[in-house]
Amino acid sequence: MNFAFMNKPGCIGILGGMGPGATSCLFDLIIKNTPASSDQEHVPVIIYNNPLIPDRTRHIVYGEESPLKMLTSGAQVLEKAGATLIIIACNTAHYYINDILPDINIPILNMIDLTSEYICTSMKGSGRVRAGILASTGTIRSGRYQKSLESYGIEPVLLSAQLQEELVMEAVYGKRGIKAGYKREAKTLVNEAVKTLANSGANTIIAGCTEIPLVLREKSSPVPLVNSMEVLAKEAIRKVINR
Amino acid sequence: MNFAFMNKPGCIGILGGMGPGATSCLFDLIIKNTPASSDQEHVPVIIYNNPLIPDRTRHIVYGEESPLKMLTSGAQVLEKAGATLIIIACNTAHYYINDILPDINIPILNMIDLTSEYICTSMKGSGRVRAGILASTGTIRSGRYQKSLESYGIEPVLLSAQLQEELVMEAVYGKRGIKAGYKREAKTLVNEAVKTLANSGANTIIAGCTEIPLVLREKSSPVPLVNSMEVLAKEAIRKVINR
Repeated sequence: MNFAFMNKPGCIGILGGMGPGATSCLFDLIIKNTPASSDQEHVPVIIYNNPLIPDRTRHIVYGEESPLKMLTSGAQVLEKAGATLIIIACNTAHYYINDILPDINIPILNMIDLTSEYICTSMKGSGRVRAGILASTGTIRSGRYQKSLESYGIEPVLLSAQLQEELVMEAVYGKRGIKAGYKREAKTLVNEAVKTLANSGANTIIAGCTEIPLVLREKSSPVPLVNSMEVLAKEAIRKVINR
Repeated sequence: MNFAFMNKPGCIGILGGMGPGATSCLFDLIIKNTPASSDQEHVPVIIYNNPLIPDRTRHIVYGEESPLKMLTSGAQVLEKAGATLIIIACNTAHYYINDILPDINIPILNMIDLTSEYICTSMKGSGRVRAGILASTGTIRSGRYQKSLESYGIEPVLLSAQLQEELVMEAVYGKRGIKAGYKREAKTLVNEAVKTLANSGANTIIAGCTEIPLVLREKSSPVPLVNSMEVLAKEAIRKVINR
């Protein structure tokens, strides 16, 4: 089934549920960043929020069940429902983009490349740019951010493997972490990770796991913070409005 | 295209975009009210957020373009995408439920009837129940809440036609209202409406426009406040989990 949104040619499809909180946050970023004074000036959005998609990090790092099949069927559902482009509310899932694309006929905006491009532009004239990456171990191990940043001449800065687990993964996946519905302890852990990255020479930091901005505020960071999800939301709106 | 969500038989479909803020709020209520400690324990949700659906109140009150065609195609998109039940993130749109149902094969939960049922249960033993209705003029004129409440033995309490426009409609649709992305003035207007309804004898108040809870807090009300959207979210979760 295909249908056209009246008067507007474009519709953003959000492949989400990884987790639902991050998906909702991305939806809110789209609403907040759209210049609109009535319902009808907002952009159409279709959200496929499937929290049952297998964990991305558990596949990439531990070889458990792959989420690819469900990501692909989700992307197909979004296309059939009328989406004209897809954005994915999970950095780690970007690992699978090239395997999803052959099965759909609409583009997927790449949050990781858009973030590198954004940093490259916004940090112009700041000398050597070193971007600290706050992301799941799956995203780090996939090397997607590192490769993308390097292609823009930006040096990636990572946490040690130990701090990556103790700070970031604990904040996101811990018993009292963000995915479990808590924020207080996660906030402390993430702030510690931010400080460590800045002390390691990062002059900008990427909130490169969609759960991170749920507990991290710009003002708590000693260096400019880039919310990859916000970069993505803004580009998706621009693409749909200017289509 | 139809697909099954692995291990979970149910999926909530949200017919939204009326407006996007209320849709996002309903999505958040589903997330917050689901007992889950990992992504995979959340319920699948598909959101059709089409802000281009013609305004419901403008059709019911002024005879402008009907939203029925787009509501129906949205419901069909949700069904095709795998939703097993539909909830509508707009009280006024409930006017059209009986006209949508013949064109789909899944149920639509009725936020208005669920709210009446909830009040009937929660106010048991409180003597005569008088429920103030905070809703768009379209919802009021459609008479849906009044009829539903009366069928449960509850007396509806309304604002005068003048205050309905000056307080509620201004808060929701005004130039500095909720649908235009503002909250401060709307908060003042809605609180004034709450006081007026309580002074008119209401011993409970229904936040019966999905934009109202965005600016109204329980503590600012002198009588118990019922968020119809929260009642709806909880019932949708229950239905999908117990399916």
